[in-house]
Amino acid sequence: MSIRVGIVGISGFGGGEALRLIASHPSFELVYAAGESSAGSRLVDRFPGVPAKLAELVIEKWDPAALPKLDLLFASLPTGASAEALARVPRHVKIVDIGGDHRYVDGWAYGLADIWPAEIEGQSRVADPGCFPAATLTALAPLLADRLIEPGNIVIDVKTGISGAGRGGDSKFGYAESNENLVPYGLLRHTHMPEIAKTIERLSGGSAAGLVFTPHLVPMTRGILATIYCRGRATTQQCLDAARRFYAGRSFVRVTDRPPQTKWATGSNLAFVSYAADPERNLVIALGVVDNLGKGAAGQAVQNANLICGLPETAGLDGAPVWP
Amino acid sequence: MSIRVGIVGISGFGGGEALRLIASHPSFELVYAAGESSAGSRLVDRFPGVPAKLAELVIEKWDPAALPKLDLLFASLPTGASAEALARVPRHVKIVDIGGDHRYVDGWAYGLADIWPAEIEGQSRVADPGCFPAATLTALAPLLADRLIEPGNIVIDVKTGISGAGRGGDSKFGYAESNENLVPYGLLRHTHMPEIAKTIERLSGGSAAGLVFTPHLVPMTRGILATIYCRGRATTQQCLDAARRFYAGRSFVRVTDRPPQTKWATGSNLAFVSYAADPERNLVIALGVVDNLGKGAAGQAVQNANLICGLPETAGLDGAPVWP
Amino acid sequence: MSIRVGIVGISGFGGGEALRLIASHPSFELVYAAGESSAGSRLVDRFPGVPAKLAELVIEKWDPAALPKLDLLFASLPTGASAEALARVPRHVKIVDIGGDHRYVDGWAYGLADIWPAEIEGQSRVADPGCFPAATLTALAPLLADRLIEPGNIVIDVKTGISGAGRGGDSKFGYAESNENLVPYGLLRHTHMPEIAKTIERLSGGSAAGLVFTPHLVPMTRGILATIYCRGRATTQQCLDAARRFYAGRSFVRVTDRPPQTKWATGSNLAFVSYAADPERNLVIALGVVDNLGKGAAGQAVQNANLICGLPETAGLDGAPVWP
Amino acid sequence: MSIRVGIVGISGFGGGEALRLIASHPSFELVYAAGESSAGSRLVDRFPGVPAKLAELVIEKWDPAALPKLDLLFASLPTGASAEALARVPRHVKIVDIGGDHRYVDGWAYGLADIWPAEIEGQSRVADPGCFPAATLTALAPLLADRLIEPGNIVIDVKTGISGAGRGGDSKFGYAESNENLVPYGLLRHTHMPEIAKTIERLSGGSAAGLVFTPHLVPMTRGILATIYCRGRATTQQCLDAARRFYAGRSFVRVTDRPPQTKWATGSNLAFVSYAADPERNLVIALGVVDNLGKGAAGQAVQNANLICGLPETAGLDGAPVWP
Repeated sequence: MSIRVGIVGISGFGGGEALRLIASHPSFELVYAAGESSAGSRLVDRFPGVPAKLAELVIEKWDPAALPKLDLLFASLPTGASAEALARVPRHVKIVDIGGDHRYVDGWAYGLADIWPAEIEGQSRVADPGCFPAATLTALAPLLADRLIEPGNIVIDVKTGISGAGRGGDSKFGYAESNENLVPYGLLRHTHMPEIAKTIERLSGGSAAGLVFTPHLVPMTRGILATIYCRGRATTQQCLDAARRFYAGRSFVRVTDRPPQTKWATGSNLAFVSYAADPERNLVIALGVVDNLGKGAAGQAVQNANLICGLPETAGLDGAPVWP
Repeated sequence: MSIRVGIVGISGFGGGEALRLIASHPSFELVYAAGESSAGSRLVDRFPGVPAKLAELVIEKWDPAALPKLDLLFASLPTGASAEALARVPRHVKIVDIGGDHRYVDGWAYGLADIWPAEIEGQSRVADPGCFPAATLTALAPLLADRLIEPGNIVIDVKTGISGAGRGGDSKFGYAESNENLVPYGLLRHTHMPEIAKTIERLSGGSAAGLVFTPHLVPMTRGILATIYCRGRATTQQCLDAARRFYAGRSFVRVTDRPPQTKWATGSNLAFVSYAADPERNLVIALGVVDNLGKGAAGQAVQNANLICGLPETAGLDGAPVWP
Repeated sequence: MSIRVGIVGISGFGGGEALRLIASHPSFELVYAAGESSAGSRLVDRFPGVPAKLAELVIEKWDPAALPKLDLLFASLPTGASAEALARVPRHVKIVDIGGDHRYVDGWAYGLADIWPAEIEGQSRVADPGCFPAATLTALAPLLADRLIEPGNIVIDVKTGISGAGRGGDSKFGYAESNENLVPYGLLRHTHMPEIAKTIERLSGGSAAGLVFTPHLVPMTRGILATIYCRGRATTQQCLDAARRFYAGRSFVRVTDRPPQTKWATGSNLAFVSYAADPERNLVIALGVVDNLGKGAAGQAVQNANLICGLPETAGLDGAPVWP
Repeated sequence: MSIRVGIVGISGFGGGEALRLIASHPSFELVYAAGESSAGSRLVDRFPGVPAKLAELVIEKWDPAALPKLDLLFASLPTGASAEALARVPRHVKIVDIGGDHRYVDGWAYGLADIWPAEIEGQSRVADPGCFPAATLTALAPLLADRLIEPGNIVIDVKTGISGAGRGGDSKFGYAESNENLVPYGLLRHTHMPEIAKTIERLSGGSAAGLVFTPHLVPMTRGILATIYCRGRATTQQCLDAARRFYAGRSFVRVTDRPPQTKWATGSNLAFVSYAADPERNLVIALGVVDNLGKGAAGQAVQNANLICGLPETAGLDGAPVWP
């Protein structure tokens, strides 16, 4: 029996990736799509390769009072916009919010599905982690859980593809200015820090997190790599072992001996983590790779939706990455 | 019941894309992989995101005398290498050859599956069309079939992503030299011409084809666009109508009013065609877009494999394109 | 003695490239810069690598009534904006208009400097050719002058880098949507056609031009390649010889035996042309390559400025292309 | 009076950039070029846009016994190859070695020209710093000189364009595999570390350096960004002030308030440095940007050549960066 699904925010990159994943999901049936800039268009006008069965669905202006019969809603709205937009969605419609407004908000589960799936199962409101936290926390969690690093002294140097900046039309994200350009930004301040800090504290049993977070825009469309410098006395092998134990039986996190590359994850819900340590120097480097639109957004959202709908966690998410 | 499948040429881009598609195919089970440069490695060593069920499969040196029990073999070898490599494959193993050696060869069906599926169904040896012919012929076929253009006077200006040049290590395909560079090559001679000419003659009922074919390397990984200039008196609407009739009921060819872009097809088995005509000037422009590794290689191959195995033509090929 | 120079339209790509060239020009001294979106900033705020001598120059709102003492003005404004903006510039200030409003307008020389330098020398108002015409006409001129091709039957398939679309913020020119995407547009209509047609008619002694013009956006920042299909009975060698004669003694056009690549011209004022012909098939292919911001905009403008100021044509333009 | 100059290693990217800079240098005359893979070709065959005066120069096989009359030689050979290749160059020929073999070697000045120009002036043998050290040390030097950071605890996270990997033909540097891919490599080991450590110790008056160095390959052709995490109690303003004092009167280092982007330096010999500090957390972040082929290779080499030839340091290096 199929689950009736809607997407709000279909015009953006996260909404578009949700559409792609839902379109080939074995249990989801897309019956509703809303978007600001694309309202009035058919799906096929915006996504020329959309499966024929969805081609004629007309994108609507978002109106929570005029929803069709829905079981599940994916929201992919700009940070600041989803809290209000989703407030009046009827309670019986389950929601996965890809946007930033409901992370660590009362009444919303925090959807770090590879780590705490039990907190998500059976909920009706789930907030996806941000894309930077997804890459960072997936790499750090095993080290924190096993007390292999100090939570109070973590330097996170992250690099993201440009789709992470959203689909707005700022010329600084234009091809001509972004190509052949590597751009650090937001030094010593970044909106993702509180979310990462709070989760680190949970993972480490309450110890205070001390973070440095430096994001960089890389001239590529998709992909995030977090290179994380930590204090700890573990060996490389101990870190890898800890991660393999931590993620044993989990479907989407791959622990690798060699440093992961962003292209390994493109188009998939996979995360790759690896480690290099020098115990004599009290140093552990953790590496985390995700597709910012996959595990960092829509892939994670579908995984969360599977959990809240009682489906197999991997339903609709078993596609291998696109390479090259 | 699953069909036991092998791939020879897994080290290259075409073989890698075949792996991706086979891995999520509902009826194919990959039991064998062979490759020159990757022999001895496990699949996961070469394709870190490969599904867990395939991770430990060891890539072998190609030896047709030492095949496991196989129902179907995908071959993706350099032109010139597959004729000999495949000669001793047992007759009961069906073959789809993505490479160039068996196109219009006796005993091999020509796998232009969107146009002549009946010629492929039930065969045991099928040769995939080349990637340039796939883009070109899909756009031209409806016009030729309806006699809307002259087969003797066709200018084909094609643009391809760099994965079309294969995975060799020539520095001229290196990132630093290819990025920000657009490269025309092979003017007035090109290996794809005879294949295109022969097919045009079949499509037009025997009229001699007269072709100009100019390929260009574009700084992108995937994608082909053929911009084709023809002589004819049809209107744009007549061309579009002809194509919609020609492909009515077919699954993978999309006829669009606006000019198709290569990104519409990325990662899929779709082809997009469109037309612009000026009857007063005796001019028809046909546009064809495919992913050179999808409809231009592995996607087409899986479609052909479905046809020869009696499966639904779309099995394993219903994924929407990756965007952005 | 230095010539006092101004730029209006410094915020855009053409204006920025003019700045780069003027900054190292031996006879030009930049004393004025105006721009819409950057007014009030210092040059160094917008161009962090600008030479120290120019760093503190403040960008002004354009006001032709409040110009400082100027000998020469470069205008790089959107098509439609420069006619009005430049109307009240005092007559003694020479103008080179990179924008589109003054091409083939009375009182303005048409600045195809590699072909008709004598028409530009000593003028005070020059309109730069468009970037597509620059690539196209440079390749065609020798063939037309020697009657080697028919002007009435020319198919121009051009490919341009994305800086050619200007610096506006449309998301379709954003990195995420433009990367890995090849986009044909404007089939059977394009604003550059009348300019090309008129010039072809001049070059061919009055014969009517018959043109097909198809532009494509290529995922690269700079560069234009025109692949041009003509009717003619010349051999490849005759075409190359004609071009070598035509451009003998000229500084910026290179005639090459092998097909030119866009990267050959990057950052320079060079144009590359080559030819491939098949007389038996009545076919001549002409290829033209320029940097759309160099020979296609600011490089051409400086060349024109040199001509109207009585300077050596190559002053400030002798830098080799940037490779890779 | 012109200085007679040669290049050995013209086939590679560093040699090519040296050619570009020498071609427009006011005092250098290129009279000799040698290269392995390009021997026998004319310069114009390899560099189609080379100025006409150099076009016919034939590239030779390297033979130090058969040099023409030379004043100055630029060497750009793979690490490991230049020590032997240069051993027999006559003493009266000055050498700037862009390659890695003569850094901190007796008889060779270390060419960190923005910091220690006096050590280079008048020498006849200079070794260019590596590209990673150039970006890193330029950013760190003012902080070390003023004791604002601890030399024993420095984390260097560097990102480089792919031309930094040289021009070899490894398929992993191919466009298809490098595009849309961000690749960390060489964790906890890297050949540039001893050079950086030794220089840090000099800059800090002998204190031992403690370094973590993590390089990443970024999908772009040119550019390096070093993001460097240090321990120190200075404020952002103190760091910026220190850098402005340190580089006062120097031509090629720009100290900026906002984080520098790699594109700011493309094609130039500029370095950009900036800082962000949080004294309460004992944290200083230093940022350094160079073009790996400019300040990181050939630009630096020309600057060093100017110093050893008694020319103005900026001769031939005053071109503004290429943007966009």
